[in-house]
Formats: sequence, structure tokens, C-alpha cells
Amino acid sequence: MTYRKLFNYVCVARPAVSVLKWKDNVFLSVPLVLGVRNVFTNSSEGNAGFKPAKVAVVTKTTRCEFEQQRYRYSGLSEQDLKQLLAMKGSSYSGLLERHSIHTKNVEHIVDSLRKEGIEVRLVKRGEYNEEIVQWADAIVSAGGDGTMLLVASKVMDRFKPVVGVNTDPERSEGHLCLPVRYTSSFPEALQKLQRGEFRWQWRHRSRIYLEGTGINLTPVDLHEQQMSLEQHSKAHRISMNSSHKSGETSGPHLLPVRALNEVFIGESLSSRANYKSYKPRFTFSLHRASYYEISVDDGPWEKQKSSGVNVCTGTGSKAWSCNINKLAFQAVEDVLKMGNKLAGLNLTLDKEQIEKVTEEYNESLVFNPEEPKMLFSVREPIVNRVFSSSRQRGFTTKVCVRSRCWDACMVVDGGTSFEFNDGALATVQMNEDDALLTVVLE
Amino acid sequence: MTYRKLFNYVCVARPAVSVLKWKDNVFLSVPLVLGVRNVFTNSSEGNAGFKPAKVAVVTKTTRCEFEQQRYRYSGLSEQDLKQLLAMKGSSYSGLLERHSIHTKNVEHIVDSLRKEGIEVRLVKRGEYNEEIVQWADAIVSAGGDGTMLLVASKVMDRFKPVVGVNTDPERSEGHLCLPVRYTSSFPEALQKLQRGEFRWQWRHRSRIYLEGTGINLTPVDLHEQQMSLEQHSKAHRISMNSSHKSGETSGPHLLPVRALNEVFIGESLSSRANYKSYKPRFTFSLHRASYYEISVDDGPWEKQKSSGVNVCTGTGSKAWSCNINKLAFQAVEDVLKMGNKLAGLNLTLDKEQIEKVTEEYNESLVFNPEEPKMLFSVREPIVNRVFSSSRQRGFTTKVCVRSRCWDACMVVDGGTSFEFNDGALATVQMNEDDALLTVVLE
Repeated sequence: MTYRKLFNYVCVARPAVSVLKWKDNVFLSVPLVLGVRNVFTNSSEGNAGFKPAKVAVVTKTTRCEFEQQRYRYSGLSEQDLKQLLAMKGSSYSGLLERHSIHTKNVEHIVDSLRKEGIEVRLVKRGEYNEEIVQWADAIVSAGGDGTMLLVASKVMDRFKPVVGVNTDPERSEGHLCLPVRYTSSFPEALQKLQRGEFRWQWRHRSRIYLEGTGINLTPVDLHEQQMSLEQHSKAHRISMNSSHKSGETSGPHLLPVRALNEVFIGESLSSRANYKSYKPRFTFSLHRASYYEISVDDGPWEKQKSSGVNVCTGTGSKAWSCNINKLAFQAVEDVLKMGNKLAGLNLTLDKEQIEKVTEEYNESLVFNPEEPKMLFSVREPIVNRVFSSSRQRGFTTKVCVRSRCWDACMVVDGGTSFEFNDGALATVQMNEDDALLTVVLE
Repeated sequence: MTYRKLFNYVCVARPAVSVLKWKDNVFLSVPLVLGVRNVFTNSSEGNAGFKPAKVAVVTKTTRCEFEQQRYRYSGLSEQDLKQLLAMKGSSYSGLLERHSIHTKNVEHIVDSLRKEGIEVRLVKRGEYNEEIVQWADAIVSAGGDGTMLLVASKVMDRFKPVVGVNTDPERSEGHLCLPVRYTSSFPEALQKLQRGEFRWQWRHRSRIYLEGTGINLTPVDLHEQQMSLEQHSKAHRISMNSSHKSGETSGPHLLPVRALNEVFIGESLSSRANYKSYKPRFTFSLHRASYYEISVDDGPWEKQKSSGVNVCTGTGSKAWSCNINKLAFQAVEDVLKMGNKLAGLNLTLDKEQIEKVTEEYNESLVFNPEEPKMLFSVREPIVNRVFSSSRQRGFTTKVCVRSRCWDACMVVDGGTSFEFNDGALATVQMNEDDALLTVVLE
């Protein structure tokens, strides 16, 4: 058996007994795992190197593809589409250009992998599923952060590495992806992986337990751009009917998702079935405040009203959470001025100092993805005669929220949502097993 | 003709010629309006008093009524409903209690009005329409702020007074309503109105112009809890079909709404028709960042990405805008600490001082409803390698936003929404004619 096959065998199958030749060492692996070095540890000598035999490359849908699909239904020609976009102030040629850049970068990745003798399966995001995850030794996300979130959403194995490559660095932030230089020199990244010039990174993720009467455990895929109404209503009806029959409280159920960025809980649209005629009716709750009770780290319950609760991981602390909590220069300037005045000081604050404070404050909102803790934030808390909010933000290892909402849901990584209506109880926690394995190149 | 009838005649019909006896004065009103004192001015001697002959009282739907309606469709008995709510942790008797309180307060209002010989039409919010607005000399909103917003939404006449009464002060903030003491002593409020012991207040509102290709001018009523899918899709289909036919840019159209609180622009749910089969498909955009271009006071256009833009009036500056911009004690404390450290100061800030700064900052977000200006706020601006935001907040008399969103809308007062997709251009401004007439009791 070649070194590579043995390595893969150990990585993928974790067999009962195997012989591993590692540099000059020979190990015999037995069920008690005597003497086999954990291939996923970061030792002081560096890693042995990572050489997957089978890699799935999952690609995003570009804006161009989306627009083409959208208008194809209406029977418009490409020329019509171009005109229509122009009238809206969009440039069709611009979309084509971005699409072309993305496609070239994907080809570059695939070619680089194949040159190394790696078997590659190239899949569009719509085709990506659990079978592909099982098949692959590693998965490459070719797109932006959204594509990384999608790829991660189907990976439940903490030993299945996921690598993100930003295929449009000019348009995409890509903070879950490799540094942008590797986009155009992916062979360099591959070599580093093979030579062990990298570090494994486990990004902690959150799990959710849901319990209560009449809860609906059916996830709604928010990226399913074309989910038909019937499918959604049907899923809802089934759940409502069964809850009527049992009449019992059920749960807690562990939901089949792991949040890489965050779990967001708040009022939103929902569809509800009319029990008599099964005619769907809609409640639009574009901006209805969310009403709920919250307990942090098994602390006292607090009734709150806000625009929702965000519970994020270290990974997610750079994402939506950051935008919720970030302060603008303007706000920092006002606070410092008022603080000075109140303290009777006559300090002149120059622009640079205010910028420094703003930067320091905003950086304090971000934490390490490898820390097994979460940050909860109450978004736009409503504080008045009726409601209050003791802490707007804080670190936590456990958050419980009881819905008092008419039409709310829990949204995981902006991609999957679960109904979260009046009476449902959600618990958000971390568990080591849920971590996502990624790489950090040196 | 009695004094009252003359007074009303002048108020309502603005006749060509009329005789008005005002205290000891007699006026002759002619088309050039010589000598008739404007009954809606606040003079230094106080007002002549307001004595409407016909008043419409518009009531809210209580949570109890909503739940009863909701479950009636499923054939549940009241006992079943009680049990179901209990299992969800809600108290049916609690809902009944709030409903009872509201109902008693409404009866109190209606009785007080009728005792004064005023003709009263009591209408539920679902029955409220333009005909009632035309009929009434004044409209009383009996509910909370939401009911006031609904009542205001159908009043386009700047001389049609609207008075809000908070029918559940313990549960409702009611900042658009009269002070809570008048809820249980409405005759006192009536007397003050009749004796002129009050001030007229014109709350400025915003208007919206919409233009662009394929725009949809059909408002969606967000409070129509049971709007059927077919109605919504149909409205959308009509608009899409006509835009395909004309292929021309249309507008600017003045939308048939006036924002008393705010206009919010951002990504949200929308339904889109499938052109081939007319099967509705749904894009859920619960948290997709909004992408648009914005120009304030005819200034330079800026591409932005955020959770939306809020343009509010003085009235609205106490509402959602406030919650978007408000700072928590925690944030103010952190900023002041960092500012001190950076300036090399060793100030200890006590809790009271931080609270004061927090309060002062948050109060600076609110301004007078009678000022003809708006406050724009960018909600959770995304600032990264790709996007920037020069000013997060500021006063303005004109805001233009061009949508670059896939599925966005403009929401007026949380009650009416308009599609606002890629290429559409919205202009938000103020016009004196749009003000809403309310009262401030002394």
C-alpha cells in the first residue's frame, strides 16, 4: 500500500488495524490506537501534510447565472435581458465579466487539483448533498463566504476538512476563505498543504435544541430560490396536524444543523395554513418587533422586545454580529464629546484619536473562532415603560429563548430557517463534536 | 344657525359665504376669506375650542380577538384554545383581561362623546376606510401607536384632526396618544378641547416618489393578516406584464401614502410570479444585506450595503429610528474607557456619569415632530474592502435611493409596503400639505 493510500485510509475509514509508515517510523494501529499519531493534530514539528485523493469542488451561482435563469422563464432572449438590465441601470456585460472571472478561477482550482492526481468532482451549489460529502476526502468551496456557509452546512464530521477559495476577490469579502493571493496561485496552496506548511483550525459551531407544543422541525432552505408554495405549506400543515393530535409537549429535539456563523432569532415572514380550506395565508412581518423571554447561562429569565437576538460563534463574530454591534465614527465622536463635557474637561479630540477609539471598539467585538464560546447580542432592544434589557451583549456558553412571537423563526447562517412561534423554546449551545475543520496556511 | 353648526360648517365645508359669531365678534366670510380667523391657528389667546359634531372611533384588534379568530378556523372550542395557549406558556385569561380593559376604555370614550351630543361611529380597524374619514369631523384612535399609524394612513387632509387614546396603558407605550390619565377620564380631555385649552400640532410626514422600469405601484397592506396569495400574486403579475409591454421607464409617481413615522427601505420577502405557469415562487430574504445607492440632499451618490435605510420624521425619531441608533450603557462605558486610556487620562467613570452620557446621547436622536425635516439612518452599514459608508446618520430634506436589491421593498410606518427592486428609484421628501393634525392638551 502506498503512503498516500494508507494515509487516506486512516483519515477516512479509521480501520480496526492498519500499518502506517510515517517518515522513518512504522506504526501499528489497533483499536486501542496505540502509537498512531493523530493526523489532525498540530505538532510542534508541523504537520505530516495533507494529501486527499478525492476532492469535491462546490461552486456558487453567479449573479449572471441567476439573472439568466430568472429571465429564461419569461422567454426573453439574451438581447432582451441585456436591454432590460440596462434600463434598470445594471450592466449585463459587467455581470458577464464577473461570471467569467469566477469561472476562470474555478477552472484554475480544478486543473491544479487534477495535476496532482487528485480525483475531482465539480458540483454546483444546487447539486451539493450528503453523498458528495461522504465521497470526498476534502471539500473546496469555490465562491465567497456564502458558498462556504453552504458547504459547511452539510458537513457534520469534525474530521472532514473544508477549504474556501474566494473566486471573485474584488467583489467578495471572503473572510472564511484562504488569503486572496491563493485564488490565482492555487498550486502554491496545494503544495503547502502537501508539505504540512499549514495549521489545522477547528472553528467551533453552535447546536440548537428545540422543544414545545406544536413545534415544526422542518428546516426551510432559504437559498432554495424556487421553493414552491405547496411544498412549504405542506410541511407546515403536517406539523400542525400532528401537534393537534398529540396535544403533548415534545422535545427537546436536536436540530440537524450547526451554525458556523450565527443563530438569529426574530420576527419574519411565515406562511400559515388555513385549516379549513388549506388556502395559504400570509403574515408579513417585515418589521414587527420580536417579543420573547431570554435566559443566558441558566440565569434569570427576562422578557424582551427587540429586533431579534443574534448568537454567534468566533467565526460569526466577524459577520452579522459585527454589523449589529459596530459603532460609526459619528457615534463615538458624540459619546466622547458628551463624556468630556460632563466630566468638565476641555479636551479637543482630533479625528485620528476618535478613529482609533472607533477601531479599538469595533475590534473588541471580534473573537477567535477556536474559542468554545458564543456572543449573544440583542439587536435594537426596545426599552420603555413596558420592556427592559439588562445586558445588550455578552459572552455565553448557553442561551435559552422562549418565543412569544406571532411569526418568528430561527435563521442559521442566513441559509436555513425554523419556525419559532409562541411557546417554542430554543437552547443554543456549543459541543466540541460540532466543530468544522479548516486550514490556515502559513 | 347655532354657534356649533356654524363652526362646524366652517371647519368642514369651507363655504363661499358664512357668518361666524366668535365670542363677541361677528365675522363675515367671503371667498377672499376676509375677516375669518383661521380656526386651526394657535393664537396667543388660545383656541376658540374644538367641537366636532361627528367623530369616528377606530379600535384595534386585541391579541385575544386575533387568537380567537385564528383558532376558530380550525374548529377549536374556547376550552381547546385555552388549553393550547396554556401549553405554550400563554395565559388565555390574561388575554381576556387585556381585551376587557381595552373594551371598557373604548366604551368610556364612546359614552363620553355621545354625552356631549356628538354623533359617533365605532369602527374596527378592518372596517376603517376613506368614506369614514370623509364623514368624520375628527377621528379618535382607540388602541396603541399601531392603531394611530393606521388611522393616520388614510388621512390626507391636513385639516382633519386625529386624536389618539391609549386603551391599554400598561401594555402599550402610546407615545402618539394622549397622556395616559385621559384614558380613564376622557370627558376631561373633551372639555379641554371644547374650551380651547389645547394646542394644535401638525406632525410633518414624508411623501415618496417612485420611478424606474418595471416598478410596481401596488401597495401591500402588511396588516391584512389574511391576504390570500392569489391577490398578492395577481397584483404583482399585472404590474410585471404591463412593464414588459411598455418597456419604457415610467415615473416619477407620487405614492398614495404619507409616512407619519418612517420609510424603511431594505431587503425582505417578496413573492414573484413564474411567468410561464403563474406558479408563485418565494424568495426568502430574511437576512440578506440590502445593496443600493444613496444620495442625500442631492449630494454625491454612494454605493452601500447594509441592513437597510430608515428615513424618519420627528414623530418617527422616537420610534424605530431611535432603536436603530440608540446606544446601550455597555457600549458607552466601553467607548469612554477606551477614550480615556487613549488620551492618557486616568479618570474613573462612575455608573451615574456613564448613565448620564448614555441618556444624553439617546435623547439627541429625537427631534420635534413639527420640524419640517427628516433623519436618515443607515442600519448596520457593511464597511469592508468592497463597500463604505461616509455618514451613518444625518438630517435631510431629501433622500434618493436607487435599488440594487434582488428582493427589497419600502415599508411605510410598518404598515404598507411597496416593491423596490433592482433599478427602481425612490425619492423621500417633505411637503407641508402632508402634515397630520393632532392635538396637545395642556
